[in-house]
Amino acid sequence: MAGEFDLIGRIRARAGTRPDVALGIGDDAALLRVPVDHELAVSTDTLIAGVHFPDDTAPADIGWKALAVNLSDLAAMAALPAWALLSLTLPSDDSDWLDGFLDGFDELTRLHDVALVGGDTTRGPLAITITAHGFAPNGVALRRSGARIGDDIWVTGTLGDAAGALAQWQGGGPRSAKLRFRLDRPTPRIAAGLALRGLATAAIDLSDGLAGDLGHVIVASMVGAQIDLGRLPTSRILADHFADEPRRWNLQLSGGDDYELCFTAPAANALAIERALAASDTAATVIGCITAGDGIAWATPEGEAFVPRASGYDHFAGGRA
Amino acid sequence: MAGEFDLIGRIRARAGTRPDVALGIGDDAALLRVPVDHELAVSTDTLIAGVHFPDDTAPADIGWKALAVNLSDLAAMAALPAWALLSLTLPSDDSDWLDGFLDGFDELTRLHDVALVGGDTTRGPLAITITAHGFAPNGVALRRSGARIGDDIWVTGTLGDAAGALAQWQGGGPRSAKLRFRLDRPTPRIAAGLALRGLATAAIDLSDGLAGDLGHVIVASMVGAQIDLGRLPTSRILADHFADEPRRWNLQLSGGDDYELCFTAPAANALAIERALAASDTAATVIGCITAGDGIAWATPEGEAFVPRASGYDHFAGGRA
Repeated sequence: MAGEFDLIGRIRARAGTRPDVALGIGDDAALLRVPVDHELAVSTDTLIAGVHFPDDTAPADIGWKALAVNLSDLAAMAALPAWALLSLTLPSDDSDWLDGFLDGFDELTRLHDVALVGGDTTRGPLAITITAHGFAPNGVALRRSGARIGDDIWVTGTLGDAAGALAQWQGGGPRSAKLRFRLDRPTPRIAAGLALRGLATAAIDLSDGLAGDLGHVIVASMVGAQIDLGRLPTSRILADHFADEPRRWNLQLSGGDDYELCFTAPAANALAIERALAASDTAATVIGCITAGDGIAWATPEGEAFVPRASGYDHFAGGRA
Repeated sequence: MAGEFDLIGRIRARAGTRPDVALGIGDDAALLRVPVDHELAVSTDTLIAGVHFPDDTAPADIGWKALAVNLSDLAAMAALPAWALLSLTLPSDDSDWLDGFLDGFDELTRLHDVALVGGDTTRGPLAITITAHGFAPNGVALRRSGARIGDDIWVTGTLGDAAGALAQWQGGGPRSAKLRFRLDRPTPRIAAGLALRGLATAAIDLSDGLAGDLGHVIVASMVGAQIDLGRLPTSRILADHFADEPRRWNLQLSGGDDYELCFTAPAANALAIERALAASDTAATVIGCITAGDGIAWATPEGEAFVPRASGYDHFAGGRA
């Protein structure tokens, strides 16, 4: 089946390399060198058409996003990305689609000096599984479990844009191309993650929405959280398209697909964090604090309690182990 | 969607650990420690229902095989397995199926002390992607490219049993449970791979059939090969069920799914190899030699040339990058 070998050849041609790749794509396994005194960070995620991205998503956007969601996991660990493996299940030998996919994938590998070191292709309904590898000096990586009572809770960027795009796409009304871009081309916050080494106490990436993901942090850290909804960083475009506050808050808390970082840090580190993130060109906002107890208390600008709709996974059909 | 969290909980409960897992399943990424002066070997493979295993395959057999085909890649590199990540796409929240799958998966992880360090679950047609990690001392791993003119060509175990089972399953005639076991429960030749460190010059695992896979070795090594079909190691059960030699040879050369190792070594190493493999309880047979030129010459016991049918991938719908 020459077509399939051709697909593999197209992938191999994009593999790239790095000095720490002793043997790249094309053998039974890749051979890689982790720097001494560093931990290897490894994450894997599968994206399915119609589940993790709208069916009309451009191939290049799918290629970008499939890698971005994995790099975002590395960012949350404060790890520096290095290598990726790509498993592609394709309905047909569509080399145009594959070239488009690889264009978007490559665009992001070049931004972060990621080498594609392995992969396979299989026939079936469109699905993409990527395993991303990075590293951090021993003991430096951020975990979900490090939040302490009194810590500030921060988020990078703005929240809810991707969920707004998805709501518009599902609703059939007017659509914003700017919001859609945020859905299709999430920015993995690698520079921010690296800048937070030694400053943040815990971190997670916002894949499923703040409510669900911050929930993972407080459970892992055995603490509670208080969030001021008035402080949620909100893009102008989202505010324009979703003027109703409770609806917008739900997009921001439960919509997912932001791929911003949520992290915690002692208030004493706030200035150092602002400086470090400014140097990495990333906006970040304090939205609340870690409390004793458990659960998340959401407060409106008027000081009233708010209950987000069921959090996370609502446009997903699975979860992370 | 409680069912999905429940699936993840079931996977987490089986994760296992090792001293070199600094942080296991349950965060954005795992944190792992590669021994100093060792290379990390990484391989990924996707299995699709009806493509890589018959639809009637038991969940435990699927769990075993999905990991086995990845460990087999590590064996071919002479790497010692350490960690795996599991991406499962499931058509429904079928916890019985998942428990069965994990039973087979775990059986093999325990045999090789492999820790499950990450994964995700997604809703969709059944597909399993596993990424397996192992290591080998720097420079020791076996590659496809090391075969030299005059080297013996060896294979472990017997060839064609799995292909025989598949032929029986597809043909609708009598079926051998012993052959089917070889299809469903391949043995990754980890011990053999480790035993061959310093003795073999090149290795590959036989996933697609000897013709295709040895073909990869000779292309990577820029040599040719001569194989004596009369020396192909053949199980009694395969010979009984497939008495016609050309048909059996085609199963052995082009059928795939053996997951035996094919390796090359100088003839001077033959005795040391036999001793090392005996210590690892693995049978192995010299079936030919590496020649100048290119391509593979297949010779019948009568010394006639034989042309295998189109090699590899015939029951697959994809390939390895």
